[in-house]
Amino acid sequence: STLPDSESIRADDLRAVWPILSAEDRAEGFLLLPRDDAEEFFLELDSHDHAALLMAVPPNARRLWLRYLAPDDAADAIQQLEPEERGELLCLLDDLARNEVSGLLAYADDAAGGLMSPRFARVRPDATVDEAIAYLRRQARNQQIETVYYAYVLDGMQRLLGVVSFRELFVASPEKHVSEVMKTEFISLPEDMDQEAVARIFAQRDLMALPVLDAEGRMKGIVTADDIVDVVEEEATEDIQKLGGMEALDMPYLRTPFGEMVRKRAGWLAALFLGEMLTATAMGHFEDEIAKAVVLALFVPLIISSGGNSGSQATTLVIRAMALGELRIRDWWRVIRRELASGLSLGVILASIGFARIVIWEHAFHSYGEHYLLVAGTVALSLIGVVTWGTLAGSMLPFLLKRIGFDPASASAPFVATLVDVSGLVIYFTVAQVILSGTML
Amino acid sequence: STLPDSESIRADDLRAVWPILSAEDRAEGFLLLPRDDAEEFFLELDSHDHAALLMAVPPNARRLWLRYLAPDDAADAIQQLEPEERGELLCLLDDLARNEVSGLLAYADDAAGGLMSPRFARVRPDATVDEAIAYLRRQARNQQIETVYYAYVLDGMQRLLGVVSFRELFVASPEKHVSEVMKTEFISLPEDMDQEAVARIFAQRDLMALPVLDAEGRMKGIVTADDIVDVVEEEATEDIQKLGGMEALDMPYLRTPFGEMVRKRAGWLAALFLGEMLTATAMGHFEDEIAKAVVLALFVPLIISSGGNSGSQATTLVIRAMALGELRIRDWWRVIRRELASGLSLGVILASIGFARIVIWEHAFHSYGEHYLLVAGTVALSLIGVVTWGTLAGSMLPFLLKRIGFDPASASAPFVATLVDVSGLVIYFTVAQVILSGTML
Ligand SMILES: [Mg+2]
Ligand SMILES: [Mg+2]
Ligand SMILES: [Mg+2]
Ligand SMILES: [Mg+2]
Ligand SMILES: [Mg+2]
Ligand SMILES: [Mg+2]
Ligand SMILES: [Mg+2]
Ligand SMILES: [Mg+2]
Ligand SMILES: [Mg+2]
Ligand SMILES: [Mg+2]
Ligand SMILES: [Mg+2]
Ligand SMILES: [Mg+2]
Ligand SMILES: [Mg+2]
Repeated sequence: STLPDSESIRADDLRAVWPILSAEDRAEGFLLLPRDDAEEFFLELDSHDHAALLMAVPPNARRLWLRYLAPDDAADAIQQLEPEERGELLCLLDDLARNEVSGLLAYADDAAGGLMSPRFARVRPDATVDEAIAYLRRQARNQQIETVYYAYVLDGMQRLLGVVSFRELFVASPEKHVSEVMKTEFISLPEDMDQEAVARIFAQRDLMALPVLDAEGRMKGIVTADDIVDVVEEEATEDIQKLGGMEALDMPYLRTPFGEMVRKRAGWLAALFLGEMLTATAMGHFEDEIAKAVVLALFVPLIISSGGNSGSQATTLVIRAMALGELRIRDWWRVIRRELASGLSLGVILASIGFARIVIWEHAFHSYGEHYLLVAGTVALSLIGVVTWGTLAGSMLPFLLKRIGFDPASASAPFVATLVDVSGLVIYFTVAQVILSGTML
Repeated sequence: STLPDSESIRADDLRAVWPILSAEDRAEGFLLLPRDDAEEFFLELDSHDHAALLMAVPPNARRLWLRYLAPDDAADAIQQLEPEERGELLCLLDDLARNEVSGLLAYADDAAGGLMSPRFARVRPDATVDEAIAYLRRQARNQQIETVYYAYVLDGMQRLLGVVSFRELFVASPEKHVSEVMKTEFISLPEDMDQEAVARIFAQRDLMALPVLDAEGRMKGIVTADDIVDVVEEEATEDIQKLGGMEALDMPYLRTPFGEMVRKRAGWLAALFLGEMLTATAMGHFEDEIAKAVVLALFVPLIISSGGNSGSQATTLVIRAMALGELRIRDWWRVIRRELASGLSLGVILASIGFARIVIWEHAFHSYGEHYLLVAGTVALSLIGVVTWGTLAGSMLPFLLKRIGFDPASASAPFVATLVDVSGLVIYFTVAQVILSGTML
C-alpha cells in the first residue's frame, strides 16, 4: 500500500497521494482520518469521488457518510452510479432526505433543478416579522435550510410570492407583516433552465442565491453562488476543449478512460484531416507552377499558417465574447467591420516582415534568384490577402454556426485553420500566377 | 438621439440600446428611468460602466448614485478613473465610506484585498449568543454588513479568532459564549493572494464567503462567492485568449480600443511568423527533392497541419487541467505516457485514412504515378511520426513553460502548431529520403 505507515494520517497526507491510490486504498486511508479531518476532506470531494468512496467503504460507514451530505450533493453522488446501484444508497437515507434526493434525481445534472438544494428558508406572507424570525430559527435548528441569507414567501400552494433578505427582516419593525416587507419583483429560474444560462444570470447580477420554480410557479429549491463557481469552470472547460479542436471530455483529464479520450479527439482530428486533404487537391492544380518555380513551394507553410493563426485569434475572441453575452448575432456587422480593419492591419504588418526577410536573405545568401523582388511581392501580397481572409473567416464562422443552431465554440482554431489553409493556397497561387506570369511562370 | 421618444423608458429598453449609445446618451437614458428600474439597472453595470456613468451625470445624481454602491463596488469604479479624477468622487462619499473605499483602493484589483468588502459581521468572543445576535441585528440595521451568513469573532486587535455561521448561532443555547460555539479552524485568505488562487479555493471547497487577513492576522474584509463567479469568468477569458495565440485583452471585445487590440494580436502573430519562417528554411534544404518529386510538395500542408491539430488538442487539455489544479508539474510523467499512447493511436488512424486516400485517388485519377504505393507509405509513416510528435510537444510544452516560470497558457495552439510545422517538415522529408531514395529521389 502507498499509504503512510502510522495508525492515524492527516487530511493533507491523504490529499497528496489521493490521485494515485486505488479505490480500496482511498477507502482505507479515508477511514484512518481523525473525524474532523475526515469531515473536511469528504466535503471537498466531487460527486464522482463521493460515489466511488461510498461504494468502497463498509456499510456502516456508507450510511454515516451518505447522510453527512446535503441532499443536493447526495443526489449528485447517486447520479454518478449505475441505475441499479442507486437504490442501495437511497435506502440508507432517512425518509425526509430520501424524498428530497429522489425528487432531485429527476433533473438533468446541468439544469437549474440539478443544481438546486430543496432546503430553503420559507415563511408565510401573513406572519409578522417576529413570527417569521422565530420560525426561521426553528427551521435552522432542524437543519432544514441551506442558507439563511434569503427567506422565501410562499402561499398555500407553494407558489413564490416574494423574497425577503434576512437583513431586511432583521431591520423591519417586528409587528409588520412579511407581505409588507417582501420584494415582489425578483428573478427566478425555471427548473429546466440550462446551467450556462443560470450562470450568466448570476454573473450579471452578482447574486448569492436564486429561487427555482416549476412551470406552475411552485418553488422547488434554491441555487447558490458557490455551486455556480463550479458551473462557470465547467462551462469554460467545455468551451476551451471545443476551441482546441475536440469534443469536451466532460470529466477530469486523468480520470477520462483512454479509449474515450482517443475517441473524443479522433473524431474532430479525422474530420479536419479530410478537410485538409483539399489542400493536396488544391496544390495538385498548381503542380505545373510548382515544377517551374520550386521556390513558390518553400513559402506555402509560412503563408497558410499565418492565415490560420490570425483566424485562430479572431474566432477565439468572438466565441468568448459570445459566451460572455458581449456579442449577439445582430452584432455581426460591427464585428465584420472591426475585423476587416484588424485583418488588413495585421496582414500589412506580416507582409512587411515577409518582404524584408526575402530581400535580406537574397542579399545575404542569394537564395531566390534574379526575380527575388517579384517573389517577395507575391509573398507580401498573398500574406495581406490570406491574413485578412483568415481574420474575417475566423470572426464570422461562430456567427454562422450560432445562426444555424450549432455551438459557436465548434468554430475551433483548428477548424478555422483548415478552412484557411485550403483557401489560402488558392489565394497564394492565384497571386503568383498574376505577378509571376511571363517571368518565372 | 437613439433613445425612444417617450418621457419615461424602462430598464429593458435601455439595456437593448446601451452598447451603441454614447456616454452622454447613456446618462440621459439612465436619468429617465423610474427609480426602481434605475436601481436595478445601475447595480448590474460593471465597474467600467459605473465610472463612465458617474462622470457623465450631473453632480447631484453623481453623489446619489455613487453612495448607492457598496464600498467594494465604489472602489472598483473609482479604480477605473484616472488618478486625478479619483479625488472628486472620493469627496462625494460620507466619512465612513470614504475611509473604507480609500483603504480598498490600496489593493490591486486582482488580489484578495481588491475583491473584498470591508462590511462583515463581527462579534466579540466573550459575548453570549443572545448578545451576539442582538449586536448583529444592530449591525444589519446600520447597513454595516454585506452578508449575515457568517459572523467573525475578533479580539481587541481585530485579529480573527474564529468563525460562526448564523445558523450555528441561531441553534446554540442563548446563554453560551460565542467562543464556545465558534469554529477555530477556518480557511482565510492573505490580502495579497492572487484572485486565481482565491477562486481555486472557492471552487474546491464550495464556500459562500471567506475572510481576508493582513500579515498580522488582522481581519480586513470578506470575499463572497458572487464576486468569485466573475473572477472565474475573467480568468477563463484570459486563458482562452492566450490559448488562441494572443495577449489577453483584459476588457470586453467591443470596448477594446482598435489600436490596443491590434497591438495585442500583432505581437504574438509576428513572433509566430518569425518562427514559421523556419519552414521556408527547412523546405529550402529539401528544394532538390521537391524539384525531383513535386508530388511530395502536395502533401506538405496536410501533414504539418495534422501535427498542429493534434498538438492543439494536447496543449489545450493539459493547460486547462493545470488551471483547474488537476495536473501539477510532478504529473508530467503520467501525462507523457498517456499522450505517447494517444499520439500513436491518433497517428495510426490518420495514417490509415491518408494511405487509403492516395491509393483510391491513384486508381480513380492516376494522380501519383507508378510509385504511388511508396508515396502513400511515405505519407502514412510521416503522419504517424508528426502526429505523435505534435501530441507529445503539445502536452509537454505547458509543463516546460510552467517549470521555467511562465504562464502555461502561453503554449497556445498556434505556438504548438508553429513548432510542429517546422519539425514536421523535417520528419516528412527525412522519411521521404529513406523510403523514396533510389526510386523517385
Ligand atoms: Mg445535482
Ligand atoms: Mg458579476
Ligand atoms: Mg456544491
Ligand atoms: Mg450546494
Ligand atoms: Mg453545457
Ligand atoms: Mg457551452
Ligand atoms: Mg497550420
Ligand atoms: Mg476591488
Ligand atoms: Mg466546487
Ligand atoms: Mg460585485
Ligand atoms: Mg461584493
Ligand atoms: Mg490573472
Ligand atoms: Mg491565468
